[in-house]
Amino acid sequence: MRFDIVSANPKILESSLKHGLISRAENKSLISTHIHNLRDFAEGKYKQIDDIPYGGGTGMILKPEPFFRCINSLLEQRKYDEIIYPSPQGRKFNQPLANELSLRENLLLICGHYKGIDERVIKKFVTMEISIGNYVLSCGDIASLVVIDAVARLIPGTLGDGESAITDSFQVETGFDFPQYTRPAVYERLSVPKVLLSGNHKEIDLWRSKKAKTKFRKIKKINKDK
Amino acid sequence: MRFDIVSANPKILESSLKHGLISRAENKSLISTHIHNLRDFAEGKYKQIDDIPYGGGTGMILKPEPFFRCINSLLEQRKYDEIIYPSPQGRKFNQPLANELSLRENLLLICGHYKGIDERVIKKFVTMEISIGNYVLSCGDIASLVVIDAVARLIPGTLGDGESAITDSFQVETGFDFPQYTRPAVYERLSVPKVLLSGNHKEIDLWRSKKAKTKFRKIKKINKDK
Repeated sequence: MRFDIVSANPKILESSLKHGLISRAENKSLISTHIHNLRDFAEGKYKQIDDIPYGGGTGMILKPEPFFRCINSLLEQRKYDEIIYPSPQGRKFNQPLANELSLRENLLLICGHYKGIDERVIKKFVTMEISIGNYVLSCGDIASLVVIDAVARLIPGTLGDGESAITDSFQVETGFDFPQYTRPAVYERLSVPKVLLSGNHKEIDLWRSKKAKTKFRKIKKINKDK
Repeated sequence: MRFDIVSANPKILESSLKHGLISRAENKSLISTHIHNLRDFAEGKYKQIDDIPYGGGTGMILKPEPFFRCINSLLEQRKYDEIIYPSPQGRKFNQPLANELSLRENLLLICGHYKGIDERVIKKFVTMEISIGNYVLSCGDIASLVVIDAVARLIPGTLGDGESAITDSFQVETGFDFPQYTRPAVYERLSVPKVLLSGNHKEIDLWRSKKAKTKFRKIKKINKDK
């Protein structure tokens, strides 16, 4: 699977894509990531990529020409299953959508400034606007990183043998994980719950399911009250 | 405002924190970010930071000792307003919560593996579990980056003069931005809507409000259908 990313701030993404799970998947040739610097497609002495908004208002808007040039050159090389623009105005990104995207071959992500990009770019090229949550970020690069990470880890082979994504939270019943413990059994006078040391897997499953449900109800209430 | 981040994968964060808006805020001395490598607090020849889960199951769990050592050493140096653990089991991160956190002085973020960390760390130290969305990431580092970016940009002075966060989507009526356009007025036979060139600010405001509402209704329907 191939991810192309058009960015006005490649440095924000570079190191994140070169470490951790994303790079592990890349080293296994399961995915490849390619950052395209918007500024390389700007013209003139100052390689200007943004300009003031028509109709007035604050903030700078990313200009259409560098996007058109960059995206057209990419489209000459291959077809994209989706051209994604992360923005607060998008369809909510969630696990089912991550699953769906993990079945695609070529994804193109277009990263905007937080004040936005010229609407003509969106109308001409974008097939899917995605919102990773109800908050505002300084740029689309960080949102793209979230999407790439969530999608890449679902590609078979990315996770280690024992880490199947099937047991993820959001893939199961409540969508919540149970509390996890590892060695030592007692640390700073804090003990691992006895049931986990019992070897009784029926009891363990029951305890885990109960804990996940309790947590789910608690957080649901908190989110409702806020 | 100070952000401390405890991470098992500092490389994922480093470059992102050193570029873009977060570094701009840091250069203006409005914020400071400090990454602490979990492995520096591990013991033994192999500096082991994870181990298998008690009670069985897949994936590795981050051990309690390195976190206890790291967080205790930080707590000796200062108080934290919140000790945040990003996880899918958390309170939903949204713009009101970002606003709330932007008023704090010291935040400590603890990044986990996707299969989790020893629950004793959470029980002992964490004051707030935050979920940035209903999807699973490979590590908490990317979620921490989202939180830091969303919070940092709300700190007065971070954004440029003309970019006040007050006009953000999610701070206003529908929570949606209107379409933005910049020069040229015609590009590849695609024109900027005439109203934006009219200079009639009452008309422009009406058009923008209408467009934002239409988009809001459209996406609300898409999210409902999914």
